[in-house]
Formats: sequence, structure tokens, C-alpha cells
Amino acid sequence: MQNFIVNQWLPDEDSSINIKSDWFVKGLFLYEVVRTYNRLPFALKKHYDRLLRCAEYMGVEKALPGFDRLASLVMEGIEMNRTNSELRIRIVLAGQNLLLLYEELPVISKDIYELGVKVGISPFQRPSENIIPGKLKLIGAPWSFLSKTRLGECYDLLLLNEKGELCEGSFTNVFLVKEETLITPYEASGILPGITRENVLNLASALEMKVEIRKVMAWEAFVADEIFLTHTSAGIVPVRRLESKVLIEEFPDGYTRILMDNFEGYVMTREDNWKGIKL
Amino acid sequence: MQNFIVNQWLPDEDSSINIKSDWFVKGLFLYEVVRTYNRLPFALKKHYDRLLRCAEYMGVEKALPGFDRLASLVMEGIEMNRTNSELRIRIVLAGQNLLLLYEELPVISKDIYELGVKVGISPFQRPSENIIPGKLKLIGAPWSFLSKTRLGECYDLLLLNEKGELCEGSFTNVFLVKEETLITPYEASGILPGITRENVLNLASALEMKVEIRKVMAWEAFVADEIFLTHTSAGIVPVRRLESKVLIEEFPDGYTRILMDNFEGYVMTREDNWKGIKL
Amino acid sequence: MQNFIVNQWLPDEDSSINIKSDWFVKGLFLYEVVRTYNRLPFALKKHYDRLLRCAEYMGVEKALPGFDRLASLVMEGIEMNRTNSELRIRIVLAGQNLLLLYEELPVISKDIYELGVKVGISPFQRPSENIIPGKLKLIGAPWSFLSKTRLGECYDLLLLNEKGELCEGSFTNVFLVKEETLITPYEASGILPGITRENVLNLASALEMKVEIRKVMAWEAFVADEIFLTHTSAGIVPVRRLESKVLIEEFPDGYTRILMDNFEGYVMTREDNWKGIKL
Amino acid sequence: MQNFIVNQWLPDEDSSINIKSDWFVKGLFLYEVVRTYNRLPFALKKHYDRLLRCAEYMGVEKALPGFDRLASLVMEGIEMNRTNSELRIRIVLAGQNLLLLYEELPVISKDIYELGVKVGISPFQRPSENIIPGKLKLIGAPWSFLSKTRLGECYDLLLLNEKGELCEGSFTNVFLVKEETLITPYEASGILPGITRENVLNLASALEMKVEIRKVMAWEAFVADEIFLTHTSAGIVPVRRLESKVLIEEFPDGYTRILMDNFEGYVMTREDNWKGIKL
Repeated sequence: MQNFIVNQWLPDEDSSINIKSDWFVKGLFLYEVVRTYNRLPFALKKHYDRLLRCAEYMGVEKALPGFDRLASLVMEGIEMNRTNSELRIRIVLAGQNLLLLYEELPVISKDIYELGVKVGISPFQRPSENIIPGKLKLIGAPWSFLSKTRLGECYDLLLLNEKGELCEGSFTNVFLVKEETLITPYEASGILPGITRENVLNLASALEMKVEIRKVMAWEAFVADEIFLTHTSAGIVPVRRLESKVLIEEFPDGYTRILMDNFEGYVMTREDNWKGIKL
Repeated sequence: MQNFIVNQWLPDEDSSINIKSDWFVKGLFLYEVVRTYNRLPFALKKHYDRLLRCAEYMGVEKALPGFDRLASLVMEGIEMNRTNSELRIRIVLAGQNLLLLYEELPVISKDIYELGVKVGISPFQRPSENIIPGKLKLIGAPWSFLSKTRLGECYDLLLLNEKGELCEGSFTNVFLVKEETLITPYEASGILPGITRENVLNLASALEMKVEIRKVMAWEAFVADEIFLTHTSAGIVPVRRLESKVLIEEFPDGYTRILMDNFEGYVMTREDNWKGIKL
Repeated sequence: MQNFIVNQWLPDEDSSINIKSDWFVKGLFLYEVVRTYNRLPFALKKHYDRLLRCAEYMGVEKALPGFDRLASLVMEGIEMNRTNSELRIRIVLAGQNLLLLYEELPVISKDIYELGVKVGISPFQRPSENIIPGKLKLIGAPWSFLSKTRLGECYDLLLLNEKGELCEGSFTNVFLVKEETLITPYEASGILPGITRENVLNLASALEMKVEIRKVMAWEAFVADEIFLTHTSAGIVPVRRLESKVLIEEFPDGYTRILMDNFEGYVMTREDNWKGIKL
Repeated sequence: MQNFIVNQWLPDEDSSINIKSDWFVKGLFLYEVVRTYNRLPFALKKHYDRLLRCAEYMGVEKALPGFDRLASLVMEGIEMNRTNSELRIRIVLAGQNLLLLYEELPVISKDIYELGVKVGISPFQRPSENIIPGKLKLIGAPWSFLSKTRLGECYDLLLLNEKGELCEGSFTNVFLVKEETLITPYEASGILPGITRENVLNLASALEMKVEIRKVMAWEAFVADEIFLTHTSAGIVPVRRLESKVLIEEFPDGYTRILMDNFEGYVMTREDNWKGIKL
């Protein structure tokens, strides 16, 4: 793969940066993960806007080029990196350095969609919004990578905040379905408001589902009828089992199934996911 | 300067590492900062032990060589990097990669010792020990670098945890003196238990000062008689002013002065600070 | 004194109620404290409304008569209890039982207005609004009476909530003045929003003072220029000393002085303090 | 019934006390609930000791007579109040006034033991031990009586603290059974450590069950195999349903059944439950 490193395209083996520098020692790493559909970057403008807001909050917004410039760099990389599979692109602001790291989008096993995945409750806590703004998408958030070291057989671990509220997984957002209502934690609990989460919420509204975005106590997940996770690489991932509670006996159904069946069609045609990209 | 990068010594300008890798994306960066006195690494064994405990907690302890090997690498670097000033050495575990980054120890202005520094209260919170183990010395702890972006005229900003308890500065530990007692926050509040902090506590005991290591509510700092900060590079730093409260009218005195006067002599001769180093 | 006990007027020595009953065992005691000015009940409608809201929250609103009936009972008691001093009237809902308890308003020493009082920080916490609604004015709130057992030389002790935010005293509300701004904790921190507090806020606005009603961290009180307390019996009480911090060297001045000088005139003429009372 | 009111025995209809007094206005009400077995007061010494500790904490210990005096008063009342049923005796310290209130122990429906009861999660929070000491058994704890106003069809509602930890019911302690381990919340979460709870823990140890007294997150109750409640009047009460989660399909079994079957025999013969009572 070719990657954009500061100001030039370099192959994987040469994608090095000097680490004898302030940004490395201070650990200022903002990032976004973008995927392609049909070799076009999905929701790039949304990712860009989120990164820009973070960069402004951190005072490093000058390091980020304008959207048009970024979009043309991203497209240039997609052009260069010809493969049969879709791509996953990390946009990283390492201090003042812009990095675009390309790799093949991992192939997701069909099993996770047909059988659902196992998730657990993380032994680590995620600070609520009052303590650390959830929007800060930082490489190295400790609760996130500590959770990843304890995954075991689980697809992801759900993080609670210091008040016992359900927040998110270590790399996913979480949704519950209970009494024909789609429920997801609000931002005050401390979540990264994911692009896929936003698309699912919009889709649910378009399908006229009842939606609640609110404080969700962790125990509510254990009386939910359905649970699913969302993240960029895999979209909607149904949960078969939460700790020892079994949610899915056979195939995912209910709201989860409806949302999964409609997701790709919806996001592919929704205009704001393709803003600024020449189709 | 020469730096040890993974497995070789490289000058600053060539101190690069490949970032198209898991450790970079996951943001697993543990580190320690060591300084020299008389060109010998201070308290290296203590720093090593702390790093080892973190590495074990994170499951990357295999990436850290044994102490003797590390000590001889550190000494080798000191030999190579001949300067008139003392050195500051960052020992970094970037995933499985060991880095030793050398630079001159910044010359500390005498003013800060003679006049004291200004500190403020950080607008950001530090999670307490229950949420994030304080011992994790991570590059990129958000509360720390967010605080550093808001320093203004302050030497450092003091962080409170989610319960309003005083924790530490963004790169320092904090001590209060009140009614002839030396007080410092306990680890449960969420602090990095610094090597200089430990030396100061030992020195205070040797001087038969009354010492309290306990929960310290933030407001207690505002009725303290004296406040000082500690960190590796500068030792003991007296505080002249906390927000709008003036603590020092002329020169630092009291316990702060006594500890400053005795600090270097004490740490230079205390055996456990030089364990494993051939003097 | 004559008191209204359930359905009859009784002298102090006969003011007994049967305690072999549900309401006593359950401890359901809502109350308000009203004072007179010129033998007229001050802000009775405001106290009534607050009591009604509490009673509704507790599901005992049927035990409270309509405002007109209550006002005529209160006036009847004032008529009966002829003294040279003003009165303090406790309106209590003990389960379904209405009690009106009369006593002379304690004479407040002029010293507290001319010299200010000493206050401390309570060793007990007050739960924030999320845990216990602050508006519940309950006989027997533990944080309040525990604080009262520890007053020592202090006029009152200030309570912090579980986040280290400043809330209120055990029987007072608290105000800070800092940089020509009047600051008082908001309801989310967990306070009883006092009638005197409300009058002071209105008065400050009428005087075109800058006012902030917001989260106040406890340490902010220690960098305030002025502090004062408010409660029904004594109005505005200036604070001379907070823990070891001295705020007033001679006489209270600044905003505190201005508000004290204007308080009685303001509340006596402000219409909503006398709503429903025939003057 | 005859009740001991301050210094004399009075029938229910005359059991009144004067409320024009400090203790009533301050709301200082400590209490214990004791039941009889075979018309003897159960665990009276334990209740006495707990009440004494509370009274000391509140500074009203002088109002409590010595144990021997209290025991002979309690026995005197039992003698006087002859009924066919067992008795429930409330020992109340209302300020400096000692009250002993007698009533028949309510007959517990056999259904609750054979079918189990429904419980819910309270919408109110119980402050953790740090905020309000759990041992304070106060008439009028707001979280407790607020929960009781919202019981609906539930036998009791379980209270969480501000961290999302499971504490206790509004008048019960709670136990979980999971993987052949008996689990109950520790005191730091904020519980009243009940006498029945203590007897159950001792019984479980005597039966060589594995026991954990620890922080229990609320969600753990939803993956428990069994749940039961304990309180003085009813002993061990199995839980059939927690919110929408069904725990018991037919009859209670497992550890709950074993403990229920052995409870009465155990407490009746365990010496420390009858200390100071002449059998």
C-alpha cells in the first residue's frame, strides 16, 4: 500500500516518521477511520468535520488541510492502491503531521451477521462526558485499549462510565431494542458519536421506529429484547450473547434484522454520506 | 544526539520508526523520563520497576529487556552523547519497540526556585484510580495534554478528579504544607506516584516532619501555608501563587525551603536511587 | 404559644400528637419555615407553593389545604400569639397531619451583621440533585443534621456534593462575590432553593449587579472576595472567615453591604412576597 | 397495645408526644425494628449495639439506657401485650426520648415463600457510604420512603448508588446466587447491614457455601441464578422476577431453598441471637 506521510506518498515499508519530536512525546494523535464502498470514501465529509472539531479543541486545526484538499488526497490514494477489496483509511493528525494510512478492509465473516457475536462488560470504566469529552477520538484512550487487551472470546466489551451508565464498546457504539423502541446512550454518558450510529438513527427514523437517545443504565441492557453494535468497518453487528444472557437463539430478527436489511441501501443513497465526493 | 531506536543507535535526524503498524494505531505507548546527575541516570531501577509493572498490566512486558541490559544501554547512550549539560532520557515502549530518546536536560531558570511559580486549577478532570489506574504512565493521557494546551502563564495546572479531590499537575506531583504537616494526595485519588515524590516523602521522614498521604480536597490547597510541585527534571518547585491566592511574598521558606536545601544531598547519597548503577 | 395541631389550636404544653401511626414510622415530614415582618407572614404564597410541589412529589398533596385556608389559619395563629417580637412559624405536613408551630423569632445579634460570622466546610456530603431532589425540604435530612452536630464555633457549615461542588449550608444558602459578580450554586448541585435566596437574586438584578447561577467548585469559595449566607430568620449574613481564610477585616462592604442595606426595603415592597396577604 | 413512651406505659390511643420541641424540628429519629420468636425478642443485643453506635455517631447516646435496662423494658412490654401472634417492636430514639412501640407482627402470606416476589429497580438513588454512612438507621431516609411511594406491584425496589452499584431494597437487604456463590453488596456501597443479613451470611458459612461480600454492579443481578431479599419481619424472601427478568419458574430452589429451610432452626439455636435474654 501507498500511504501519505506528511507530504509524500510512501510504500508501507518506508512509512516512517521521525519520533524525536514534540508531538510524539506529547502524544497528540487525533484520528478518523474511513472505509470505502465501491472504492469511494464513505461519509468523508462527516469524518472530516468531526476531526476538524477535535483539532480545534486541541488547538492544532492548522495542521488539517481544507476538505477539498483532503478529499483529493484521499481519492489519489484510492487510485494508487488498487486491490480487489474495499479499503480502510486512517486519517491521523500526529501533532502537525497529516498521515493517510491505507489498508484493505478486513473481510468480515458472514457468521457475525447470521449468528451474532458475544460481548461482555468491560472491567474498565469510561469517564463520562464531564470528565473527558467523548468526541475526542484519540489514539491511546486507555479505557479503550485496556478493554481490547481483555477481549477473550468477545467481539467487544461494553464500557460503563463512573455512574454505572452504559456508554459504548471499545471500538463500537451500542443499541438496545426494548418494547419496540430503539435505544442508544446519549453523548453525556461519554461516547464517541459514530458516523454509523448516526446513519442507523437516521435510518430508524426513516423507517418510523420509535427512537430514544438517553441515559441508559447498564442493567437495562440485560432486559433488552435485542442488542446490536455499530462501527465503520462492519456496519451493524447483532449481539447473540451479553455475558451469560442469551439474546439470539437462531438468527437475528426484530428491529436488528430490519435495520441490517436496509442499512447498505440507505447509506449508499443518502446524499450527505457522499458530500464532496464525485460519484 | 544518538538515540536507541528498536535495535540500533541513530542520530536525531534519522530517529524514525515505521508507523504502518498495530502499535501505532492502537496507541500503546508507555514511557518513563529519567534524568542524569553527574551524567549518571538517577533512580533508574525505580523507573524500570514502574515501567515493568505498567508493561505487565498492559500485557507487553516481553518487549522490555531485563534491568541489566537496559541499564547498560542507557549508560552506552550517555557515553555517546557527550555534552556539558545533564541529560534527559525518555524510555519508551511503543508496542513491542524499545526506544531510548536522549536530549539535554533543559536548564531550569533559577527564578522558579527563588520566586516560586504560578499554578492554576485545570478546567479538565483526571479520573480517579477507580476509573483509570494512575500508575499507567501513558503518552497521550487526555487530561494531561489538554491541560498543557491551557497553561497560559502558569507553570502547571492542578487536576482534580471527578469527586473534587486534588490529584496532581499535568506533569508534576503536588504537596501542601499546613500546620507543620506535609500533605500529598494518596494514590486512590488518581495520581502518577512520581519518583521525586517518593524521594521527597522519604526525605521528609528522615527530617522527622509529620507527613500525611491522604485524600486531599481541592479547597484545602487554598488554606495551605505552602505548596510545592515535584517532577524529575526540576526537583522541588515552590508555588508562589495558586489562582488568585498568593502564597509567597518574598522567598520560599518553611518546609519547602528545608526540603529544597536538603533535596540534592539526600537523593545523591540515598542508595536505592543508584541501585544497579556503577558509580 | 398556641399551635395548630391537626384540627385544633393548642398551647405548647398540649401540642402532642399520636405517634403510633404510619406517618411517624415512615418519617414523612415535609416542612416550611415562615417568618413575620410587622406581624405579617413573609412570602407565604411562595412557601406554600414550594410545600405543595414537595407534597405532590411525595403523593401527600391531599393533606395540604388550599392556600386561602392555610393563609387564614396562619393569620389566626398570629392574632392569637401576641408578643412584642416577630414570629417564626413552622408549617409541617407530618404524613396527613397539618401542624402550624409558632415561636418567637429569635433575636439576631447585631454582631453577625457588623462583624460577619465564621463558617467551615462540613465533613459530610450533600447528594447532588441527581441523587436526591434538592427541593425536598424534609425534616431529618441526614447531611443537614449531622452537620449541625459538628458546628463548633461556626455559624453554619457549607456542604459539598459528591463531585466537590459547593451546595449550601445546613440551614442556609450561600453566595460568593468575585470580580464584581454575584455567584450562587445552581440547583443541579443539590440545594434547597430558598425564598431569601430568590429575593437576593431579584434584588441583585434590580441593582444591575452581574449574577451567575452555576456550578461552583468548592475551591472557588476560597478565592472569593466576599461570601454571605441567606436564610429566612436572619436574611443576609456576611461571612467573616471561611475555615482559616479571613474575608472581612473590619466591616462587611462591597456587594454584601449594598445587598444588606437594600434587602429589607426591597422585600417589604416587592408585591409577590405579600401575595394573598391583606396588608 | 401498650407502648413505652418516654417514661411510662401507655395504650395506643394515648401514645402521644409533645412535638413543640427541638428533636422534632431537627428530625433526629434513630430506630430499630425487633421481632419476637416464641414471644422472645430476637437478636436484641445486636439491635441494641447497632442503635448505640448510631446514637454515639449522632451524639445522643446518653438518651439510650444500658442494655439490661432496655431488655427488661422490652420484656415487660411483651408481658403486657398478650396476643396469639408474634410481636414487632420499634425501639425509637426521638431526640432524647426513648420509645418502644408494639404491634402484632404482620402475618406473612405463604405465597411469597412458595412463589417468590416481584422486585424492580428504584428510580431513586441511595448515596454510597462515602456520602451518608449506611449504618445510620434513620426514620425518614428520603431514598427509602420515596422508593416506597413507587412500589406498585413490587414487594420492594432495589436501590443503586451514584456509581451504579447495587445496594439494598428500601426495607430489605439483597443477595444474589451465581455459579454456586452467595453474593451480597459490601457496606462501602451504602447499605444498612441488617441483622437478618448477618445471620444469613453466618448460616451460609456454616453450610460451607462460598460467600462473596463485595461491590456488586447492578447489572450482575440480571445474570444471577437466584436472588433473595432479607428483612427482620419476613426472614428470607425469594425473588421470582426482577423487572422483566424471570428467575423462578416454579418453586424457589438452589441456595435460596437450602437457606430458607435451615434459617429458622439456625437463628433459633445460635447463641448470639439470644444474648442477654433469659430463655
